[in-house]
Amino acid sequence: MNQDARTLTLAEIAERLGARLKGDGERRVSGLATLRDATPDQVAFLANRAYLKDLPATRAAAVLLAPAHGEACPVACLELDNPYLGYAELSRLFDPLVGRTPSGTHPSAVVADDVRLGDNVAIGPQAVIEAGVTLDDDVVVGAGCVVGADAHIGAGSRLHANVTICHGVVIGQRAILHSGCVIGGDGFGFAHDGGRWHKIAQLGGVVLGDDVEIGSCSSIDRGALGDTVIGDDVKIDSQVQIAHNVQIGDHSALAGCVGIAGSTRVGKHCMLGGGVGLSGHLTIADGVQVTGMSLVTNSILEPGIYSSGTGAMDNAQWRRNAVRFKQLDDIARRLSRLEKVGRGG
Amino acid sequence: MNQDARTLTLAEIAERLGARLKGDGERRVSGLATLRDATPDQVAFLANRAYLKDLPATRAAAVLLAPAHGEACPVACLELDNPYLGYAELSRLFDPLVGRTPSGTHPSAVVADDVRLGDNVAIGPQAVIEAGVTLDDDVVVGAGCVVGADAHIGAGSRLHANVTICHGVVIGQRAILHSGCVIGGDGFGFAHDGGRWHKIAQLGGVVLGDDVEIGSCSSIDRGALGDTVIGDDVKIDSQVQIAHNVQIGDHSALAGCVGIAGSTRVGKHCMLGGGVGLSGHLTIADGVQVTGMSLVTNSILEPGIYSSGTGAMDNAQWRRNAVRFKQLDDIARRLSRLEKVGRGG
Amino acid sequence: MNQDARTLTLAEIAERLGARLKGDGERRVSGLATLRDATPDQVAFLANRAYLKDLPATRAAAVLLAPAHGEACPVACLELDNPYLGYAELSRLFDPLVGRTPSGTHPSAVVADDVRLGDNVAIGPQAVIEAGVTLDDDVVVGAGCVVGADAHIGAGSRLHANVTICHGVVIGQRAILHSGCVIGGDGFGFAHDGGRWHKIAQLGGVVLGDDVEIGSCSSIDRGALGDTVIGDDVKIDSQVQIAHNVQIGDHSALAGCVGIAGSTRVGKHCMLGGGVGLSGHLTIADGVQVTGMSLVTNSILEPGIYSSGTGAMDNAQWRRNAVRFKQLDDIARRLSRLEKVGRGG
Repeated sequence: MNQDARTLTLAEIAERLGARLKGDGERRVSGLATLRDATPDQVAFLANRAYLKDLPATRAAAVLLAPAHGEACPVACLELDNPYLGYAELSRLFDPLVGRTPSGTHPSAVVADDVRLGDNVAIGPQAVIEAGVTLDDDVVVGAGCVVGADAHIGAGSRLHANVTICHGVVIGQRAILHSGCVIGGDGFGFAHDGGRWHKIAQLGGVVLGDDVEIGSCSSIDRGALGDTVIGDDVKIDSQVQIAHNVQIGDHSALAGCVGIAGSTRVGKHCMLGGGVGLSGHLTIADGVQVTGMSLVTNSILEPGIYSSGTGAMDNAQWRRNAVRFKQLDDIARRLSRLEKVGRGG
Repeated sequence: MNQDARTLTLAEIAERLGARLKGDGERRVSGLATLRDATPDQVAFLANRAYLKDLPATRAAAVLLAPAHGEACPVACLELDNPYLGYAELSRLFDPLVGRTPSGTHPSAVVADDVRLGDNVAIGPQAVIEAGVTLDDDVVVGAGCVVGADAHIGAGSRLHANVTICHGVVIGQRAILHSGCVIGGDGFGFAHDGGRWHKIAQLGGVVLGDDVEIGSCSSIDRGALGDTVIGDDVKIDSQVQIAHNVQIGDHSALAGCVGIAGSTRVGKHCMLGGGVGLSGHLTIADGVQVTGMSLVTNSILEPGIYSSGTGAMDNAQWRRNAVRFKQLDDIARRLSRLEKVGRGG
Repeated sequence: MNQDARTLTLAEIAERLGARLKGDGERRVSGLATLRDATPDQVAFLANRAYLKDLPATRAAAVLLAPAHGEACPVACLELDNPYLGYAELSRLFDPLVGRTPSGTHPSAVVADDVRLGDNVAIGPQAVIEAGVTLDDDVVVGAGCVVGADAHIGAGSRLHANVTICHGVVIGQRAILHSGCVIGGDGFGFAHDGGRWHKIAQLGGVVLGDDVEIGSCSSIDRGALGDTVIGDDVKIDSQVQIAHNVQIGDHSALAGCVGIAGSTRVGKHCMLGGGVGLSGHLTIADGVQVTGMSLVTNSILEPGIYSSGTGAMDNAQWRRNAVRFKQLDDIARRLSRLEKVGRGG
């Protein structure tokens, strides 16, 4: 999949990114690539010193880089302080999806009579918009999406194909929801009595702030009484599960396969690595990072980096060590006993 | 998302819950909330001693609680032995979804000619009901669902939007299936030969008992030869994966992100915490509980609580310990040697 | 769910499988089962010595087995060197889905004007095929699927119901994609600046080779610049997450709930157990196997079996050991000190 035929001159790019151009401003480029892969009609970028080795041989039309590396660049350069941010901005200029979606409601979509639509709303084929829904200006609803009764989707938000928004969910502005995600399914709540489970109706909702992104096949469950709340600028990857009444603070990012149990509160500017699991009813402070596949069973009240688990090793070696793990308390006690003997205890 | 405008008197609630009311039976309430959040037109509940501190200041119209706490309650109270069960029952009385779904088939749905429909069946917009399907009385099929050929869905079951039921799946009565779940996709079966994989057609099905609930985006694979079987009153949370030919006993509950490999048999009244993984071909006894993110590679033949893994700690500390884990067998051997020396061995 | 009414004679089966038949070639059978469950109109198979005990009492019409076990078989036998492979082949002969799908486009499907359709293509009810898509010969698109703009699906591939293929994705021949899977959602890419996240448009695509199978609710994200690439004959189970720019070599198999972070390259003929997590930017050699729920944070450059984690144990015992894990570095240091003392150090 390559970018479409949109082209920009280097001067246009410099202006949009606020970069200092050294080179021919009239040169046209049609895309973006790595230093190694870029063809002469593409721009490359250098945002990580590990790739400095690829700079001398690049065939790119120009390179986005920090001023310190301008001297070493064999082609035109676009200097700016944060080249990775420049890359992000440039990538969006070349995004083939931008401007591609026609507005209007596809004739195959089913839209309830009382739905409120802002300006320039697009509703794709086979989508369903139930009663009482509000879609603000510039909302795009992809093919096959279902937006449940009384949901509210903020201006500029985009639902890719086959997204499910359950009844009453509130979504802020400029959200991006990827295919297969489900926002507002029931939380997992049951009372136990007489050996049976008795369902607790999940009467709360889900509220997503502005600038939230949710990955493919992720699920955010509705609250039992109050709402599940996802703050502004929260980024959630694919296959993530957020249970009922969880709160995620602004600007936090959750990588793929994270699972968060009910009522846990994650602070602002947190980063959870892939596959991390948080138990229920915890408090996680602002600025906490948890590395991949760690299990968090207690609240974390100080910012910092936290981890659990052990990395993979050769299976035969691992078997010997894993058996010893089951003896670990015994090992520690025996060691203490020896230490006492050594001290003449 | 708040509850709708339905209201009940305290006397009505007392009668439906079998609770003893102390207070004004004529008072009307319109919802349910926590002790701390309840407004004067809502009922609160006290089911966990940790929240006893919130009782004196509650503004609720009435509180569901055990008789022992009636004295301390500053407002009307609804006394019953299991207030959490009472909360579950009351939550269902205020569920806005109950009674909301119109019956009948939406004109945009595609329903095969030979489908058998019970009384009061509802089929939502853009749904697809393939040939040979039976939907018993009071079944609700949400928007965008696909029910594959020859599937059978028992009375009173509800499929939320965008659920997929594959061919031949059998679902009991009163099931609740949340959006994005897939029941009856192929199990993962291949024969290996000459460096290639050869698909084993998955000829079995999936059978769900009565009163089963399946969370958003969960998947239950069909059996290779016999069926994958989920017992009565089994509750499965979101993002759960059940492989082919697994059997789950009645009344068991599986939290989010659990994964169970092929042919494992889980007993009755088991509880698996979030992210637990069970290897294939195991037997798990009745009454087993496994704590979150544990890995179970051997059968568990006695009821009890089981765990593995380690909890998160400061990353720098963790790095030092995780390295030592790889030396654990060596540490144990060195300790044994020292013990022999100490004994003059 | 049982197999349909298709029947075959034992002679036909022997011919198709290249097996040596000992018994009545005219006998008709209508399905396949285990040695223990097979009825007299079914074929059973013996592919694992653990089931040898079920051979003497089998009621099957015939048994697929290795020549060495022919003597012990109480009924007709179909001898072949790899009976498990024979089972796989025979299972496909009895697959009720084969030959069942009508070709043609269901009138409720929405197909863009410029879509290129090969011969014998089937497009199910409520499906959406966007502009610029190519569906080669014998492609089956299930009910409710969405195939995004410019995607290309190779000959003989089958999309089960409610699959989402995003724009520009390229799929090889004979792929099988199960319900709820999403191919080509955005990768998780953001630049950080001024305390906020800035989206990196995901301009790459996804390329699946020939003979790929993807399980229910799995997601494969599109590349940031280049493509995410899944090789030929790669088998991916349910609930798997593949991040942007990952590469999976030919003939590898990934069990349920695996998660692979961005840009990691997995070799050929690898096998990842259920719930395995691979960090980003790793290289995994050909022929690597990783056991269930292991965490891989470093590249693995040699074929072999790798593992991490510890298995579940009684919770009380586990609590004691897990606490000691946090002291492990201290334990190791104290042991070294004692050893020095012992040596008179």
